[in-house]
Amino acid sequence: MRNGLNHPAPQSAPGERTLIQRIRGRAGLLDAPGLTLGIGDDCALLAVRSGEELAVTTDLSIAGRHFRLDWHPPEVVGHRTLARGLSDLGAMGARPLAAFLSLGLPQELTKTKGRQKAWVDRFFDGFLALAEAYETPLAGGDLAQAPLAVADIVLVGAVSRGRALQRSGARAGDLLYVTGRVGGAAAGLDQLEELAGRGMGHAKISRGMRERLAAHLFPEPRIAQGLWLQRRRLATAAIDLSDGISTDLAHLCDASGLAAEVDAPLLPIHFAANLEQALHGGEDYELLFTAPAKIRIPRSIAGVTVTKVGRMVRRRRGQAMVTLHTCDGVEPLEPRGWEHFARPR
Amino acid sequence: MRNGLNHPAPQSAPGERTLIQRIRGRAGLLDAPGLTLGIGDDCALLAVRSGEELAVTTDLSIAGRHFRLDWHPPEVVGHRTLARGLSDLGAMGARPLAAFLSLGLPQELTKTKGRQKAWVDRFFDGFLALAEAYETPLAGGDLAQAPLAVADIVLVGAVSRGRALQRSGARAGDLLYVTGRVGGAAAGLDQLEELAGRGMGHAKISRGMRERLAAHLFPEPRIAQGLWLQRRRLATAAIDLSDGISTDLAHLCDASGLAAEVDAPLLPIHFAANLEQALHGGEDYELLFTAPAKIRIPRSIAGVTVTKVGRMVRRRRGQAMVTLHTCDGVEPLEPRGWEHFARPR
Repeated sequence: MRNGLNHPAPQSAPGERTLIQRIRGRAGLLDAPGLTLGIGDDCALLAVRSGEELAVTTDLSIAGRHFRLDWHPPEVVGHRTLARGLSDLGAMGARPLAAFLSLGLPQELTKTKGRQKAWVDRFFDGFLALAEAYETPLAGGDLAQAPLAVADIVLVGAVSRGRALQRSGARAGDLLYVTGRVGGAAAGLDQLEELAGRGMGHAKISRGMRERLAAHLFPEPRIAQGLWLQRRRLATAAIDLSDGISTDLAHLCDASGLAAEVDAPLLPIHFAANLEQALHGGEDYELLFTAPAKIRIPRSIAGVTVTKVGRMVRRRRGQAMVTLHTCDGVEPLEPRGWEHFARPR
Repeated sequence: MRNGLNHPAPQSAPGERTLIQRIRGRAGLLDAPGLTLGIGDDCALLAVRSGEELAVTTDLSIAGRHFRLDWHPPEVVGHRTLARGLSDLGAMGARPLAAFLSLGLPQELTKTKGRQKAWVDRFFDGFLALAEAYETPLAGGDLAQAPLAVADIVLVGAVSRGRALQRSGARAGDLLYVTGRVGGAAAGLDQLEELAGRGMGHAKISRGMRERLAAHLFPEPRIAQGLWLQRRRLATAAIDLSDGISTDLAHLCDASGLAAEVDAPLLPIHFAANLEQALHGGEDYELLFTAPAKIRIPRSIAGVTVTKVGRMVRRRRGQAMVTLHTCDGVEPLEPRGWEHFARPR
């Protein structure tokens, strides 16, 4: 194959070949028991334990749509690219086996400028730091020159056969839970946009500010929480919050053939966010899951809080699939999930 | 996740949602015993037989670099996208389990024009026809609007543990074989370029002409041949010819720590190609493999001819890694593999 990470074509610019060697070298540092053969052949080879099945997901990130080169530092783009994929494994209760990354980049993003690191090296700083934290080796991928930056992330995970958390397993009467806090990513993005409007590109974002915007810049995939729920068979269904509660809960309802009621006062809203962002803001990458009412769900799993936010009910003709219960009454909650940079500005 | 194929965001244009439903519907028609859960959840779930390991590969195709919208009919782009990935599985001797496709497209490629099918529908005509021929279900992926067309293909296959054909297994004295004919894809591309220069875009290419250019337009991945070699434990090493013999053989030599001699008169050159195209032309997607001299390799495997083209020898200091043996003598064969559209025009 014409696989950049596997065998750089001989006509590649010397810089490109050096870059590929550098990535291979860095990717190879991570010890990975499930990886039989990493970067360097036509395919990578992965070992699966007997009794396990595979979970596979891919997510495409495109400059200007899923991230902006002027708003997001390269480390953030690398982190978020991998976090999107890992989050899908978390939602299935799968353990990560390996990541694969196809990267298309304009040439200027691969060049060092004086003493400054190249964009792509900083991208891998963010990517590989998260990969290491979640023991997920970068096992292969592709690298090509492209007129704009695109990154397609593939995650392969393993889960005990028949035990994956699916969207379709919820039952009427189940309670609805969410991990962590919601709305923080949307609030962070709004703030980033506001800063950019005042001429504060990502190069001017201080360390302190990055911490304030962490929910948007450095979302944590809920791998440990998904595994915990799957191994104890506690959750009946799960989905990760990538598009916002209003949209992702509608998907879960659709798949399970049910309706859901959300209790607004119970929502664990991020300190920087409002209700709107909590309900419709995407990219929090928290888990939304259901469990039977008689099961005791702990207040935190692997260090992350878990909050009951509503319940699953039978679907009734003529009624909204998802309803929001506030102190003032009940209103339908239409899916208005966040579509990255597609919203009008 | 924001996974187009899995759950279209509610704000998507109606056309986009219809498109996603259409793809899901078409992809779901293929019966696939290894696919436990297809498009529609956070991950797809795949079953692996006990004693098997996984082979995974990704290949990024970008408009203007790996294909040209003015030269290549949409069905061809779809076919070639999947063929690239399947070919990698063939080179490992793996059987396909599932394909995943991330597709970024400009909006105009998703629209029907009067009675004409949309570009993306014709893309899937080519993609899914090949998928069906190789019993490879499309199990997931992503779909996003993008300023230019990009397609990242992921193939997941299975192979008996420890039995995958790797590049590194060749031994000195092994003979070198190639499936099918070489150079045809490069010759076809040259002809396509020539036609384009005369104003013959892909819309004007007749059915007869497509057949003449088939080696370039519709390459066949060598899945059956790879499986045959792997199951009989006949090949010691293998690679697919994506960059051309001169480059791919160098990779095999590199991985095996050996040198190789190619006998020019033995090369099965495609009827439309010359020696240059046969040696350095890429994208033939034939298998190049090695086997011990005492093993009898048949003249054809699963209907495709197999030709002995040289041998593996010990590497000697100061000598070229790959040498070409002609009637006139011996010359070094430098890797000058084909770099898609990067060559100067």
